[in-house]
Amino acid sequence: MLARDYDLDCSIARTLELIGERWSLLVIRDVFLGNRRFDAIQSSLGVARNVLASRLGRLVDEGILEKRAYSERPPRYEYFLTDKGLDLWPVLVALMGFGDKYSLAEGEEPPMRIVHKGCGGIVNDRRICTDCGAELEVRDARAIAAGTTAPVSTAA
Amino acid sequence: MLARDYDLDCSIARTLELIGERWSLLVIRDVFLGNRRFDAIQSSLGVARNVLASRLGRLVDEGILEKRAYSERPPRYEYFLTDKGLDLWPVLVALMGFGDKYSLAEGEEPPMRIVHKGCGGIVNDRRICTDCGAELEVRDARAIAAGTTAPVSTAA
Repeated sequence: MLARDYDLDCSIARTLELIGERWSLLVIRDVFLGNRRFDAIQSSLGVARNVLASRLGRLVDEGILEKRAYSERPPRYEYFLTDKGLDLWPVLVALMGFGDKYSLAEGEEPPMRIVHKGCGGIVNDRRICTDCGAELEVRDARAIAAGTTAPVSTAA
Repeated sequence: MLARDYDLDCSIARTLELIGERWSLLVIRDVFLGNRRFDAIQSSLGVARNVLASRLGRLVDEGILEKRAYSERPPRYEYFLTDKGLDLWPVLVALMGFGDKYSLAEGEEPPMRIVHKGCGGIVNDRRICTDCGAELEVRDARAIAAGTTAPVSTAA
């Protein structure tokens, strides 16, 4: 019954207030992977434009994304992760680890790996390089497509 | 543009298909904290009973929770995390780490800590004991209320 005391207080609940909506986390994932423009994110996710506009606005208001103009006429913006947004990396890594374990068909390779920029080792779900053992921060790692060394991430 | 190839495939997206709904993760959190019964979870979350019933059913169908009868007349069940459900621990730890960093008022203590059962050390967001350095699994740790040594978790 003690748990009841933590409902409103709980840091998990508070985080979910910010990002606990499937599109929000997928938008954040897209920006991590270098999809910075409205049309690219919209096309990648297939989300309705008004829903995407609302989610992007909320993430900017919450200080998770910031927008920078890349065109003045017409006004167009690219979205970047703030330091706060980059601190969601552990959440994405944990979600990816679970999905790699439970959502792949038998024999299916994970579609994406996270590797240590420094030594190329695979990064595990504790964000530790399985080659050199370093405890990594988001800027120490990049995502690569399965079976290649091609980067899919330019976010950090 | 490579990122576009991973949309449907992405392990993050697949995990969010299962748990990417705020109530689902809060239900899972509650069961981690030892709230096993419908009424306890409903009272803890303040969620509508039909919504809770739907979320619990989905989580059982997905093999994340299992239910066990504790009363035959009337039929009543308790919910337990399966091994698959326990594998969501890293997601909860990551969400909690972000919330502890960004959602607390200045000077406010985190409402809950995760400690290593073995040595009592605080567990960090890589699920490593900050005292003894052990890389912990879910059964090696428990949640305690802030400023106490009282356990709030009986899930594992």
